Amino acid sequence: MTADTSFSVLTGDHIQTLRVRAGGIIFREGEVADELFVIKSGYVRIQVGNRIMAELSADSIFGEMALIDNEPRSATAVAITDVELVPISEKQFLFLVSQTPYFALKVMRILAQRLRKTNRFLD
Amino acid sequence: MTADTSFSVLTGDHIQTLRVRAGGIIFREGEVADELFVIKSGYVRIQVGNRIMAELSADSIFGEMALIDNEPRSATAVAITDVELVPISEKQFLFLVSQTPYFALKVMRILAQRLRKTNRFLD
Repeated sequence: MTADTSFSVLTGDHIQTLRVRAGGIIFREGEVADELFVIKSGYVRIQVGNRIMAELSADSIFGEMALIDNEPRSATAVAITDVELVPISEKQFLFLVSQTPYFALKVMRILAQRLRKTNRFLD
Repeated sequence: MTADTSFSVLTGDHIQTLRVRAGGIIFREGEVADELFVIKSGYVRIQVGNRIMAELSADSIFGEMALIDNEPRSATAVAITDVELVPISEKQFLFLVSQTPYFALKVMRILAQRLRKTNRFLD
């Protein structure tokens, strides 16, 4: 089974988006957080210090960690290209988790993949 | 808010358990997996190679990664003391996620905490 980790359903045409220019910081490690983001277009780099943890493209999510455990941002997110993002508030996130189990599973898959990737850095 | 990550609801008195002696291997990194475990009593060490990733006590879960992303075990689990475990099958897991959003959120919190901890190893 291929893990489906596309969140394209959340980036419809009538949803308000946030645009960030290439090179712009979307959020910084340590900041207090109240939303996650779905990438509608463009590329985003996730980094911890100087270490690149992931480079993400359209229909990926990021920033979910802080919503899940109510801790500050665990990484910094930088726009690699001009990007268009769909912000998802904590309230929307909890609604999606409770109403759409498939969404919860997809978020879990994202976290599991990132954890595996991070574990490989330790080898 | 303190993240509630206790799974004590899954370890009732009438649930079949698996007992492993102190020092026993519960599963090994790389093995194919079809269940996660809730610790009913005792302590379990999670390790990747020789690195200790976590030491877990009663009401914690482990082994959830392989169920979520259908990949082999990402770590080895060893009984530190004699342990009593409640196995949760993939089918039960998917049922819990779909019927009890709170369960899904708790699993996400576990993953997020482990990811933060692993990220700290990289600093």
